[in-house]
This record gives sequence, structure tokens and C-alpha cells, in this order.
Amino acid sequence: MKTPVNPLSPSRAPKRAHFDAETIYPILDEALFCTISYTIDHQPYAIPTSFVRYGNKIYIHGSVGSHFIRALEKGLPVCICVMLADSLVVAKSALSHSVNYRSVVLFASAEVIADPQVKLESFEWLVDKVVPGSWDYLRPITESEIRRTAVLAFDLSESSAKIRQGMPNDEVADKALPIWSGIVPLDTQRMRPIADESSQQIKLPEHLASIGV
Amino acid sequence: MKTPVNPLSPSRAPKRAHFDAETIYPILDEALFCTISYTIDHQPYAIPTSFVRYGNKIYIHGSVGSHFIRALEKGLPVCICVMLADSLVVAKSALSHSVNYRSVVLFASAEVIADPQVKLESFEWLVDKVVPGSWDYLRPITESEIRRTAVLAFDLSESSAKIRQGMPNDEVADKALPIWSGIVPLDTQRMRPIADESSQQIKLPEHLASIGV
Repeated sequence: MKTPVNPLSPSRAPKRAHFDAETIYPILDEALFCTISYTIDHQPYAIPTSFVRYGNKIYIHGSVGSHFIRALEKGLPVCICVMLADSLVVAKSALSHSVNYRSVVLFASAEVIADPQVKLESFEWLVDKVVPGSWDYLRPITESEIRRTAVLAFDLSESSAKIRQGMPNDEVADKALPIWSGIVPLDTQRMRPIADESSQQIKLPEHLASIGV
Repeated sequence: MKTPVNPLSPSRAPKRAHFDAETIYPILDEALFCTISYTIDHQPYAIPTSFVRYGNKIYIHGSVGSHFIRALEKGLPVCICVMLADSLVVAKSALSHSVNYRSVVLFASAEVIADPQVKLESFEWLVDKVVPGSWDYLRPITESEIRRTAVLAFDLSESSAKIRQGMPNDEVADKALPIWSGIVPLDTQRMRPIADESSQQIKLPEHLASIGV
């Protein structure tokens, strides 16, 4: 059998690869969602999910009964992929078009988190990542909820980032053409919160009132 | 060997699954990026890339020399995942938090597009998806560029969408709590284009001047 070719091995763009926590952690801390890929009987499966990084691991959670969690709990090798798209790179020729992005790919297998205290903390890390400052405001979590929720951790020791930033790399012969080239920045914003029926008369707490455009 | 458990099988939320083109196509047409997962020697790999849907297929392209393209060209089974996050679902308890999203997962293997005419058309579909109206403005593509670029198509016949929309599903016992719950919409916007050095004196074409906030 052939040695697997690691797609991280930067065959095309070595300068885009990074292996240091200073580069990898901020990408994982900004991205809310990752895609988790795993294999059963040679068939790849992939699922998008939310996650949080703490220390040198990322944590996901799910219902103890879900197919997805039960498959990963067996310790299958997974590949987890995170991508932030920062801008569209608009060149003078079609094939020089690109994307400015920051991505992380990691290889690991799940560590089942059984300790209720660590499970609890991982919920706090995730909630306070997605809605900063909200954990202490919520109805406290119950022991039953902790029991019914599976938490999996994935070590970041085999992770790497790929980053592309900057302007288009048009062919030298194209640079003088009177065709506009540059970037179109992409920006994901949180909009003003919208209350559900139960919350029409409830004041927006400070951590939610301060977000939204 | 166990029959693989398809993560699409909606064990937890059957009402969220959809199998019709009317649901799947608009998600694929709005999303600019997908994650392609494949397996080599039981190890899953995943790579984010741009793509375009045309008819009942999606198309990706890459350099003919890249590891990634060469692996997929062999016809390995792939799982392709697309996710659009529409809003954060903020509940009264941590574990009722959720995300409003639209996702598509598809299973396929690559069809290598060899016909230069179809390759050319697929570039036009992609460029006009990412920057609508731009194809005719760009420096025309050359035969050499078409030759050096691999195009792969993936059939959508084994695809499905999962959608979660709406307000939090808090536990009945929690609904009367004086804790704010609702959604925080997420919005990805294209910002005003920024010219590179070669384009400082070039007027923004109409298809670019009309975008950006």
C-alpha cells in the first residue's frame, strides 16, 4: 500500500503552511464551526459541528445517542477542518482568482471526556465562546444534562494552518492590462438579537445588548 | 463488517432532513466553499475548496499537479459537506443552545472532466458565481491554462440537506424563567472592493462597483 499523501504537505504553496500554536489557536478561537471527517469501511463521512479550543485540544459535544458521537467514541481516526474566508481575490484572469483564507486541518482520534467536572467546564468554554459573557446568566446546567451529553476532545499535536492573504498574483504578462484586480473583503457580522415569544418582556442582558449591527 | 451508519440518517432530528433539489440547490448556490473528505488507507483527509453547482453536479478545479486532485482523480469515494450558518440560537439553558443552519452532505466519487469545452464552461460558472457578471470582463482564458487545470465533477444523486431554522426549543420547565432567549442572526457581507497596485487608476467595473457596504 502506498504511504498516504498528507494533504497538509504543502506541495503547491509551502509558504502558506504554519505549524505553531500562535498561528493555529487564533483561527480555532475565531471559527465557530468545524467539519469532522471520519471513515467507516473505506467510506468517508463528514459532519459540521460547533467546537471550542481549550489548551491544546478542541472539544465537541453531542447527544450520547447520536450515530455521529457513537462512531467517533470508538477512537476512529478523524480529520477536522476549519476555514475562515477573509476575502475574494479578484484577478485579471479567471485562473488567477483566489481566496484569502485561514484554515486549520488536524488529525486525531477522539478522547472521551468522562469526568463530569471537565464536561461541565467544556460546556462553559463553548457557550462563552459562541456568546461571550453568557454562561453565568443561563439557567445552571443539571447533573442529568451532563450525563446525557457526550463530550469528545481532540488533541492538536497533529495540526497545521494554511493561510493565504494579500493581493492577486496575476501573471507578469497580465499586470499591465486595463482590467481591475484587487480583493473583495468578506465580513461576517452578528446582527441585533431577536427575542422569542417567551422573552418579549425580558430585558436584553448586557452581553447580548452590546452586540449586533 | 458492520454496515456503515450514514450520518445523514436523521436519528436525532428527522424533520431536519431534505432530499429534494428545490432545497439542496439553493444551499449549494449560496455557499462559496465546501469541505471535501476522502480516505486513503483508513485515514480521512479533508480540504476546503471553492465549487460551483451546474445541473445535478458540483464542479471543483485545481492544479493538475496537486496531491489533492491526483488523489480524487482515482475515483475514491468522497463526502462533500457545505454549511451555511444563519443564526446563533440562544436558549435559557446551555444545552438548548443551537445554531440555525442549512447544510448539504453528498456522497460521490470524482468524474474527471476532460472535454476542454466543458472545462472552460465550468470556469465561467465558478467565476460568475463568486463574482457575478465578471467572466466577460476578464482576460480570456488560454488553451494552456485549460490544459494545466484539472476539473472534477461530483454527482448530486446521493445528496441531502439538513436545515434548522427558528427559535430555541427550551425545555417546557424553562420557558417561564426570566432569562432572555432568541436568536442572533449572522450575516456575511461583501465589503467595498480594494484595488491592488496595478489597478489604482482603473475604474471599478459595474459588476464590482455595485457590491460592498
